[in-house]
Amino acid sequence: MTIILGGSGYIGRAIRRHFSAVGEPFRVVSRSEINYYDRDALLAAIRGMQAKFLVNAAGYTGKPNVDACEVDKANCLEGNAVLPGIIREACEAADLPWGHVSSGCIYSGRRPDGGGFTEDDPPNFSFRAGHCSFYSGTKALGEEILEGARNCYLWRLRIPFNHLDNPRNYLTKLLRYDRLLDAENSITHLDELARVCHECMTKDVPPGIYNVTNPGSITTREVVELIREHLAPEKEFRFFESEEEFMKLAAVTPRSNCVLDTRKLQAAGIEMTPVREAIVQALRDWKPEEVEAG
Amino acid sequence: MTIILGGSGYIGRAIRRHFSAVGEPFRVVSRSEINYYDRDALLAAIRGMQAKFLVNAAGYTGKPNVDACEVDKANCLEGNAVLPGIIREACEAADLPWGHVSSGCIYSGRRPDGGGFTEDDPPNFSFRAGHCSFYSGTKALGEEILEGARNCYLWRLRIPFNHLDNPRNYLTKLLRYDRLLDAENSITHLDELARVCHECMTKDVPPGIYNVTNPGSITTREVVELIREHLAPEKEFRFFESEEEFMKLAAVTPRSNCVLDTRKLQAAGIEMTPVREAIVQALRDWKPEEVEAG
Repeated sequence: MTIILGGSGYIGRAIRRHFSAVGEPFRVVSRSEINYYDRDALLAAIRGMQAKFLVNAAGYTGKPNVDACEVDKANCLEGNAVLPGIIREACEAADLPWGHVSSGCIYSGRRPDGGGFTEDDPPNFSFRAGHCSFYSGTKALGEEILEGARNCYLWRLRIPFNHLDNPRNYLTKLLRYDRLLDAENSITHLDELARVCHECMTKDVPPGIYNVTNPGSITTREVVELIREHLAPEKEFRFFESEEEFMKLAAVTPRSNCVLDTRKLQAAGIEMTPVREAIVQALRDWKPEEVEAG
Repeated sequence: MTIILGGSGYIGRAIRRHFSAVGEPFRVVSRSEINYYDRDALLAAIRGMQAKFLVNAAGYTGKPNVDACEVDKANCLEGNAVLPGIIREACEAADLPWGHVSSGCIYSGRRPDGGGFTEDDPPNFSFRAGHCSFYSGTKALGEEILEGARNCYLWRLRIPFNHLDNPRNYLTKLLRYDRLLDAENSITHLDELARVCHECMTKDVPPGIYNVTNPGSITTREVVELIREHLAPEKEFRFFESEEEFMKLAAVTPRSNCVLDTRKLQAAGIEMTPVREAIVQALRDWKPEEVEAG
């Protein structure tokens, strides 16, 4: 049985859906039920439930967007950097393999040689890099705190999307925002992330960091073209003229736009759909997300 | 009545001694008694005790020294950066003035113009500056999290010492370490820090950041000369040839050695003894610290 932390969040729900679909037994542990910010409480839960794996999908992303992290720094830091460290301690004490949903937003742009960032590249959009959002800074610190963690997967997600209309879905955001910033990104089909988590647990995948984005990269304008083609919304899409204009008019803190290299995951035997194809699939199946009450 | 958090630590005990000496009522709140890492639990305690002020002397310094922070990052981050944010939330909710024992170790060296760092200078030994120990990084994040905090004092301490022999006392360290690193520093007489805390509470001192170090600076070799003169120990003091040698042989993470400007505190009407004189006083009164059991 797998314990899922953060199971009622946007990422956690997708993981639950996938586990249910493939018949993987799991138990969502909520913070009100067990204070998993307390190492000993979490360790007791792991032992009491005889868990075989743990997935941490809990974290602090800021609502409605990362700008909110700039004004709630302590909670952001606790959720994204301290909590992974507490979970690590508990899992290592219980000798439990586990996975942490990390983020690729600790990078900006491309590598100097033009390639995507690999798992070995140090973050260039972090506190230590001297330029970042507070959110990205805390996610990078979270990865630093998990350096050398035993039997631990770090799944780096970026800009999640799938076929379910939801305020956290990248495609929904593009449909709803008044103006858009054109940028090139690697992005993650959420349901594929959930499948990757499950494959790491069940196949013989070496623990460590993995960039979990759909191979390739895509620009905002290209995604908008696909939306126009498949959803034909009545909306007129407008773009900011530059990142400077976007920062001036619409954002408090800088955003990570970056391209990741996905060959490590592929080399471990896990495939993901090329990014353009993954977006087209999501748009073809487009429908509202049904969220259970409570 | 003043609540003291971290009252059984090295800094907290000095504050307690001073408050007792001047008849200032206080109550030490321990984490086992009240989980003050929980905002609501702390807020309830503040209200229940009808506190008029709170002093946070809790933090994570690493034992025996800051190198230990490099291998216990989550707890270090929680104690030095998240906790101040939690206390801020509770104190602001209760409309309670309070003070946080911060650190001047978020700087290295001197200002480019040769002066000491003022309270307005951004840290240059922090995660955001790109070069620091993990400890200093967390202390700087703690200050960042307290930016704009209401009715909050940040007392920046550096390398505490007084007349009581103790493993945390700078003078004790110089007496016990096998080899020393020569460096120029601003340092803090711990009993004077305690007096400053009390004066901030009781005089009309504007809240904000204060460098609480004894005016001036002093090198390790100068302190050693004063120790030789006043304590005449049998020890032969040996020095590392360079910071490089020190880092190679004796340290895991770089140390902050820096000079602070103390005019802001002085302008607020609070005096501290010039650094050389403060050391001489401590050495003249030198004796073992008696620590209560429990």
